[in-house]
Amino acid sequence: MEACQGIQCRVSVLAALSRSRHSLRGAGDEGRTWQPHWQEEFAVPAWLSSCTPFAVVHLPWLSPNMPEHTAASRLRLSGLCFLLQILNILLFAVFVRYSPESSPGLCPPQLNCSHRNQDPAFQQRHFQDVHIQVLLSFGLLVAFLSRYGPGSAAISILIIAFTIQWALLIQGFFYFFLNGKIYMGAPSMVSADFCTAAVLISAGAVLGRVNPVQMLLLALLEVTLCTLNEYILLSLMGVSDSGRSLTVHTFGAYFGLVVSRVLYQPCRDKRKREERQDMGHQTDVFAVVGTIYLWIFWPSFTSATTAHDNAENWAVLNSYLSLVASTIATFILSPVLYEESTPRMVQIQDATLAGMAVMGMAGEMLVTPFGALIAGFLVGLISPLGFRFFTPVLHSRWKIQDTWGVHNIHGLPGILGALLGTLLTLLATADTYGDRLELVFPLVAQGSRTVTDQAFIQLGALPLTLLFAALGGWVTGAILKIKMLRCSADAQYMENTVLWEVAEEGCEHRASGKELGISTLV
Amino acid sequence: MEACQGIQCRVSVLAALSRSRHSLRGAGDEGRTWQPHWQEEFAVPAWLSSCTPFAVVHLPWLSPNMPEHTAASRLRLSGLCFLLQILNILLFAVFVRYSPESSPGLCPPQLNCSHRNQDPAFQQRHFQDVHIQVLLSFGLLVAFLSRYGPGSAAISILIIAFTIQWALLIQGFFYFFLNGKIYMGAPSMVSADFCTAAVLISAGAVLGRVNPVQMLLLALLEVTLCTLNEYILLSLMGVSDSGRSLTVHTFGAYFGLVVSRVLYQPCRDKRKREERQDMGHQTDVFAVVGTIYLWIFWPSFTSATTAHDNAENWAVLNSYLSLVASTIATFILSPVLYEESTPRMVQIQDATLAGMAVMGMAGEMLVTPFGALIAGFLVGLISPLGFRFFTPVLHSRWKIQDTWGVHNIHGLPGILGALLGTLLTLLATADTYGDRLELVFPLVAQGSRTVTDQAFIQLGALPLTLLFAALGGWVTGAILKIKMLRCSADAQYMENTVLWEVAEEGCEHRASGKELGISTLV
Amino acid sequence: MEACQGIQCRVSVLAALSRSRHSLRGAGDEGRTWQPHWQEEFAVPAWLSSCTPFAVVHLPWLSPNMPEHTAASRLRLSGLCFLLQILNILLFAVFVRYSPESSPGLCPPQLNCSHRNQDPAFQQRHFQDVHIQVLLSFGLLVAFLSRYGPGSAAISILIIAFTIQWALLIQGFFYFFLNGKIYMGAPSMVSADFCTAAVLISAGAVLGRVNPVQMLLLALLEVTLCTLNEYILLSLMGVSDSGRSLTVHTFGAYFGLVVSRVLYQPCRDKRKREERQDMGHQTDVFAVVGTIYLWIFWPSFTSATTAHDNAENWAVLNSYLSLVASTIATFILSPVLYEESTPRMVQIQDATLAGMAVMGMAGEMLVTPFGALIAGFLVGLISPLGFRFFTPVLHSRWKIQDTWGVHNIHGLPGILGALLGTLLTLLATADTYGDRLELVFPLVAQGSRTVTDQAFIQLGALPLTLLFAALGGWVTGAILKIKMLRCSADAQYMENTVLWEVAEEGCEHRASGKELGISTLV
Repeated sequence: MEACQGIQCRVSVLAALSRSRHSLRGAGDEGRTWQPHWQEEFAVPAWLSSCTPFAVVHLPWLSPNMPEHTAASRLRLSGLCFLLQILNILLFAVFVRYSPESSPGLCPPQLNCSHRNQDPAFQQRHFQDVHIQVLLSFGLLVAFLSRYGPGSAAISILIIAFTIQWALLIQGFFYFFLNGKIYMGAPSMVSADFCTAAVLISAGAVLGRVNPVQMLLLALLEVTLCTLNEYILLSLMGVSDSGRSLTVHTFGAYFGLVVSRVLYQPCRDKRKREERQDMGHQTDVFAVVGTIYLWIFWPSFTSATTAHDNAENWAVLNSYLSLVASTIATFILSPVLYEESTPRMVQIQDATLAGMAVMGMAGEMLVTPFGALIAGFLVGLISPLGFRFFTPVLHSRWKIQDTWGVHNIHGLPGILGALLGTLLTLLATADTYGDRLELVFPLVAQGSRTVTDQAFIQLGALPLTLLFAALGGWVTGAILKIKMLRCSADAQYMENTVLWEVAEEGCEHRASGKELGISTLV
Repeated sequence: MEACQGIQCRVSVLAALSRSRHSLRGAGDEGRTWQPHWQEEFAVPAWLSSCTPFAVVHLPWLSPNMPEHTAASRLRLSGLCFLLQILNILLFAVFVRYSPESSPGLCPPQLNCSHRNQDPAFQQRHFQDVHIQVLLSFGLLVAFLSRYGPGSAAISILIIAFTIQWALLIQGFFYFFLNGKIYMGAPSMVSADFCTAAVLISAGAVLGRVNPVQMLLLALLEVTLCTLNEYILLSLMGVSDSGRSLTVHTFGAYFGLVVSRVLYQPCRDKRKREERQDMGHQTDVFAVVGTIYLWIFWPSFTSATTAHDNAENWAVLNSYLSLVASTIATFILSPVLYEESTPRMVQIQDATLAGMAVMGMAGEMLVTPFGALIAGFLVGLISPLGFRFFTPVLHSRWKIQDTWGVHNIHGLPGILGALLGTLLTLLATADTYGDRLELVFPLVAQGSRTVTDQAFIQLGALPLTLLFAALGGWVTGAILKIKMLRCSADAQYMENTVLWEVAEEGCEHRASGKELGISTLV
Repeated sequence: MEACQGIQCRVSVLAALSRSRHSLRGAGDEGRTWQPHWQEEFAVPAWLSSCTPFAVVHLPWLSPNMPEHTAASRLRLSGLCFLLQILNILLFAVFVRYSPESSPGLCPPQLNCSHRNQDPAFQQRHFQDVHIQVLLSFGLLVAFLSRYGPGSAAISILIIAFTIQWALLIQGFFYFFLNGKIYMGAPSMVSADFCTAAVLISAGAVLGRVNPVQMLLLALLEVTLCTLNEYILLSLMGVSDSGRSLTVHTFGAYFGLVVSRVLYQPCRDKRKREERQDMGHQTDVFAVVGTIYLWIFWPSFTSATTAHDNAENWAVLNSYLSLVASTIATFILSPVLYEESTPRMVQIQDATLAGMAVMGMAGEMLVTPFGALIAGFLVGLISPLGFRFFTPVLHSRWKIQDTWGVHNIHGLPGILGALLGTLLTLLATADTYGDRLELVFPLVAQGSRTVTDQAFIQLGALPLTLLFAALGGWVTGAILKIKMLRCSADAQYMENTVLWEVAEEGCEHRASGKELGISTLV
């Protein structure tokens, strides 16, 4: 460091720079250089400050023992994908056929087919819904992006691509199974997309702490448990949860949180925080796009499986009003909690998500617009408070790392939505609902259940879902942990925020490498 | 500056750099560091050139007297949001109920309900329109972004969230009021979205020169005046303006321009220009996304309230053809006006907007495709000419700062659209229109008005709208100016282009800080 | 370089930097500074390394003889746009009228109008399709962006704006011509959008090697040839290709590749590679957005012209399943081919496109879901293999530069889709298809053709399309080459990846300028 001065020093720095770039690019693969090398950018000060090219060698992604780990890890993911895809194709070949549209007897009970008109025009609209659902999954994907950049998009798409197939199978066995065949159609696609949303929510809780292989196993297990929970709630208990406050938002959030607890790794904390703050500008661009997607398409998500004849509009309008009010609430609370005059875009995006999640169950039950405004307003206040005060407690005391804050965005709003739905069920009368009673509470309208019974069942579904999520998450986390032991030791620290294939370093090794980089700065 | 040389100098620069980063991050709030610090990036040359860390202190966002101003400003916005949201909830609780779909008597006259089929399938399509409208509002939002980055997105969303609620109330009182209640449904949402678009256009004219508090007051007043203007034009005078050339584009643009005139501040000019040029690459990314949104969804905006039975397709097709022709016109004129072989993406986006605005009134009246091509082509030529030659005159002579160029994108095309609509009304005959005459000009079809009378009324609506916009803008600007005086003095220079919470500096203070930064460079 | 040391050197570098910035901005035009100056960023190391400001003068975009070339090129494009637009307006004025919806006799045979219900609700949905088609064109546009940044967006929009008008005319003469008039409506828009997609695919093959003027001529010629090919296949031969595997994907890809072969320029190779690798981070952001668009809207593209009554859903569902499987296949193959654990986003986007292209013809013919999974899986394996092994051979041996890799994304999947469609046609029986036979193979259902005949014709359409594409591409390339000679000599090296107006440099001149910049680095 003291060997070079003035222009000589600068030249050697630039030589080291060009050499290190060359080494990055020329290291046998041309593909790697296409990836966003954020760490590379971050490390530039280190290159500028240290005049020796040797400093570069110590940077984690150039450590010499990396390749063999990477190769094993790469091929493990590749092989698992291959096996799962072959399995999916075989199972599809054996079991899945397209649904003959003319047979309404195949319609699952939880989709309220009997209340719908079965004309082609309706079928068309339903396909449109399918599009929007998948889009929504991508809305979530974009939401991920706003925190973790394009690096997390690839794994999100992998999860989506696998989960849709797997959910078509698993849900098919529960709902669309007849004479040894699963009859698939647009409704199966909608159900599979709902299930994918739950998996993505759980993935948000553990993002950055599990590798893609674990993520696939998580999806494999969660789809099964989520479908089982949904089947018990919607089909067996007759719970009305058309926008999936319970079966998607609450289940997904607490499942992911429990998995996160089981996989807790204390040494990762400090670094995580730094990385989140380094995203800077990029973050907001994605948050804007994600928020736009959510504003446009989430109301359709909430109302996708509500009865279409007369009732849908209320679910859509309630969702809009809740969304609007929760956004304003963020603008109210953000300046009080943080020293900013306006909230960051990611906060607005979170408010949008929370305002939608609370309308999941209650969306089709609310009969007055100001109810939706109040519910959205309250959840828009609770969600930022949760981020500010509850997430640190969750982390420090209960050792639950919540990467994406799913507890505040999906968990709490989902529970509040379920409680609100229970309250509204109690208040439901044939007068205020009119024809819609048949659509929202078919069992009540048929006289086989009183409003109080229905409300009791709606309320009971909440602890049941939490129990399912906790047990399922615990079992899944335990399996992932076992799996993880069987993986190479380094794989457990794989990250999405940075390049996965270069980030497979031990916790201590990495931290020291980082400190080395920083120490050369001062 | 002369105290350090060679490696010592570099180390001290880096120390200053790391110290200043640290001070930015560690200054009591972790939230601020998430925001895009563009100024921080811009100022890096200053840090590199000046070896003393003191230079950093003079940068505006680290000035010691900032926090107390910020705190007051922050809480003022927060408090205003709170009051307005509580007011909205109370007014919704007292007045607004969901519309019982079975009562067609509630339908407002300007929406031509009597000419529509009221079956559920049609209702469904209308909801889809609602989505698209809100999307369109976001299209505008994205359009903002293309010039001012994510920083302007937060305030756009705040305006949208508040304006939709407020417009539902105000427009409800005008159109959907019956027996002391406002009956809300999908049509109210569509109307509210139109109104939001007008407010966003006005906001585009004053963007960067008003703070969020003023922006909310502007929305509060403009919604009222816009609805009054729309009510007089559409309901009382029977003007046919389905795509809102007059009531949205022309009104919004001139309202904003007059407000901008009243709020004129001479000392801001030079800096604004620099900032716009500093956006660089980011700009084009957003412009591409914004243009895509507009191409996809604006034709639906133009045709949202046209009669759906047979006429809609013409409005959509005319919009497309106009858009296509105005885009080509930009490619023709841009190389002549500027020394570029191809136009910038923001210019293409402007052409898209202008080509749509001109089809607002005429979209459903044009009976031949080449008419739309010619209209789009002409407006595509006029809009860039306006940017090149008229905007500087507007600024230098009439002291009207037009941040977003709304005069060329919305004002002029809106006027041209209204004139074209008048001409087409004169040419309308029962032969060429057929059944569509009943839909486009119901009063003419019913025989209560001749085509000449209708054309005269269409023409008269233009000066009336301009008068309303000018008077309303003048009153609003005056109120904002009074309000502004009651705010802390620094708040008036708050900007969207940079971080709001750190940009509250006096005009002279800031300029000097900037010059200091530049002077250290040379 | 040896004249400056320490702080003096740094000051002079910064002075040069500020001077060069000033010269860039103050050089007579304010417009140019808005453009993304990637080269400027790229050249920063050169400025830092060389202490003399003279180095800046040698950078290509500041070369003194640039303006006159640029002015000629700019005005040539502007003039051509003007002429073409006036021509379009005149032709529209003479020939094109809106279609009176009540006359079903105008419906072209290849759109199977007779099998569709003509009620307004159906018409509405068709307009929605129009939106989605144009969007799809933009999906392709966004896909371009993922490789070449916003600079390529402007020319894509120019191509789209011109091609839509031109295709409306040309296709109108073939399909919608009656009594001397073209009757235009929503179906014409859909057809025109399909044709635009083919032109965009071809443009992808030659992107970066032709100037905008040549691109417009390419569009002019390709629309004619593509429509002729489509007319022969769909109308005369009765080929069933609803998702356009042959007429859009295969034709567009091989047309573009042959044009690329004719325009082959050996000296461009090395630089192209560098530029593609320099996009880095930006690339992935666009690839994510592009992939999302494609997932959402491509299934509608595939099924836009399929019969809507009962069959559409299968085309949509097959497209989804194919897409999902090809995505997984990319995750399987990418770690094997490249040393990465997860594929880059552009690879996932390519897999999405390939998985859709293969379903073009077969989408409505597949009667079992696992067939779509297998087809998508195979094409998802073939496409990356093509990129890895075939594209280099294509380039080195056959001298075909494939900028966007359209051969692997559209060409090969299109051929595979056609072969799959032939196979499925052979397997088609009235039992498995039921009512859908009438919709998919009307001639077979009417008894005028056997299944074997139909399969033979489907198979014969493939070499016919390849022949058309090759001949058409050869003629077009030859014309572009003649044209090019008549342009100024420098224009042929115009690029989209960088600023067009500054990139008009000779091949050798440029390379030397580049090498100069690099030589100063070491």
